[in-house]
Amino acid sequence: MGPGDLTQVLAPLERHGDSRLLVGHETFDDAGVFRVSDDLALVQTVDFFAPIVDDAYTFGQIAAANALSDVYAMGGEPMTALSIVGFPRDRVPLAVLTEILRGAQDKVREAGAFIIGGHTVIDDEIKFGLAVTGRVHPDRMLTNAAARPGDRLVLTKPLGAGILTTGAKRAPLGPEVERPLLDAMRTLNAAASRAAVAVGVRCATDITGFGLLGHASHIARASNVTLRIRVAAIPVFAGARELWRMGMGHTGGAERNERYLAPLVAWGSVSSEDRALLIDPQTSGGLLIAVPATMVADYLSRVDGAVEIGEVLPVTDMRIELV
Amino acid sequence: MGPGDLTQVLAPLERHGDSRLLVGHETFDDAGVFRVSDDLALVQTVDFFAPIVDDAYTFGQIAAANALSDVYAMGGEPMTALSIVGFPRDRVPLAVLTEILRGAQDKVREAGAFIIGGHTVIDDEIKFGLAVTGRVHPDRMLTNAAARPGDRLVLTKPLGAGILTTGAKRAPLGPEVERPLLDAMRTLNAAASRAAVAVGVRCATDITGFGLLGHASHIARASNVTLRIRVAAIPVFAGARELWRMGMGHTGGAERNERYLAPLVAWGSVSSEDRALLIDPQTSGGLLIAVPATMVADYLSRVDGAVEIGEVLPVTDMRIELV
Repeated sequence: MGPGDLTQVLAPLERHGDSRLLVGHETFDDAGVFRVSDDLALVQTVDFFAPIVDDAYTFGQIAAANALSDVYAMGGEPMTALSIVGFPRDRVPLAVLTEILRGAQDKVREAGAFIIGGHTVIDDEIKFGLAVTGRVHPDRMLTNAAARPGDRLVLTKPLGAGILTTGAKRAPLGPEVERPLLDAMRTLNAAASRAAVAVGVRCATDITGFGLLGHASHIARASNVTLRIRVAAIPVFAGARELWRMGMGHTGGAERNERYLAPLVAWGSVSSEDRALLIDPQTSGGLLIAVPATMVADYLSRVDGAVEIGEVLPVTDMRIELV
Repeated sequence: MGPGDLTQVLAPLERHGDSRLLVGHETFDDAGVFRVSDDLALVQTVDFFAPIVDDAYTFGQIAAANALSDVYAMGGEPMTALSIVGFPRDRVPLAVLTEILRGAQDKVREAGAFIIGGHTVIDDEIKFGLAVTGRVHPDRMLTNAAARPGDRLVLTKPLGAGILTTGAKRAPLGPEVERPLLDAMRTLNAAASRAAVAVGVRCATDITGFGLLGHASHIARASNVTLRIRVAAIPVFAGARELWRMGMGHTGGAERNERYLAPLVAWGSVSSEDRALLIDPQTSGGLLIAVPATMVADYLSRVDGAVEIGEVLPVTDMRIELV
């Protein structure tokens, strides 16, 4: 569901403050952080969705990497996961679900965590995801609220996954397009997160359903800054621009993101193609990190595929400025 | 999904043992327990389902009480919850989702815990539930594996909720039937759990989708004992027997439970009506507790509605013996 609807749903609910609640459900889709003791906080997140690729094992890997990513975006280390499954038991062989779970389990183990339970309902379509719990030191977590003017913005995976996976439902992607896409989506954000913690970064988010600009706007709001993003610097998956030009990558999620972002972004002279990429909903996208300027070179040298895409400015009328 | 299907799905997956994994996903739907330190383990569980009552706020309360119950069944105290939502955004007003969340939030707060995040997908039907994390001392948790011959079996809520909620889809329940049902389903198992911990109980489970006998069979297997249940002692919701006799309370869940239980239960001369109640899938059902005989009177005096329904025997060919 889009950010506007979620805001409307949650606004009437009473807020319950507590000193242990370090990050609550302001946006409903963010990871929450709950302090258990002076040196331990739980980072918790849940995500699930219908298959975006044909292969069951690969889908399980991607869904797991995507769910684990919110823990990494907070600078945490995953400990446990619960699987969340909708399955059309009468139409799809149970072996398909075993393969999805095998893919997820392999990724969860790669993250050093364990699937310790789950819930499965009979559903009209396959849905799969994880509720993930990680641990983080309360004083060392990465938050949306810690970007400072002068920081550089770094993105660790290309954009265009939403366009490509949507287009793939109408015509198969060639292997030279499909392979890098799948490899990126099943790559854990573990290395990107650990490098951020290692070089002293304090601010990160991961790019998922709200697209680069939606998640960037959360950083800008929470940190009370403006983000300047250099459109030409954005890394893009092979094939995404071509598919968009063919009119095959339009998504309802992108439309919702565009409505939400309209009043927040100074679009400048950005082309409609670039705009589509900037609002494209990602699955298992990269981290967007605000890195102190003196540490950017160090960070980029540690993380394969990381690209500097902009900088943090003092707050202006617009949350995001595209150049 | 039924226990037979789940076993088939999970059997091919590799098991990853770890000394921190105190309770893993042998049955996929049980709570898992993960040791974080010598005095702290996380109890984690997830459950969600389509509305079983008309009122949105009440449904939120029941769904939350049901999800929190697995933590109580392990002797834990809930800390955090993530909401899991499927919502037909184009057919149902968003205010309905706000009311569901309000009901859930009120129950989560009653449990002393916080909803710290969630995920919402657009779906054909409403689905709602929680992934819950509680804390328990690793040496003091209640498990399925700790029943001992001589223990007495105590059940803390009546049976028949599945029959009544199914029947209610065809004809409204009268208030004298509906009120006690709703009150029971939205009652937290907190008091039943804390009393068990207080009197030194070590073995408990909660009664949900697999029915009394399904969950009882998990205790019997895990503890390597046989449970003798006195059918005449079972507490039953007002109206459940009448609705079943009218043929209005049959569920697919009960059929799946019956197939699963067939080889495990010595049915004796139990009537088909009693059998239907014993395998009836419950929502937010009570705890089934194995209480050392010397403590039964103490326990029953502490928990409203708790009833002694049988005893634990040395293991025989059958997991459950009905008398």
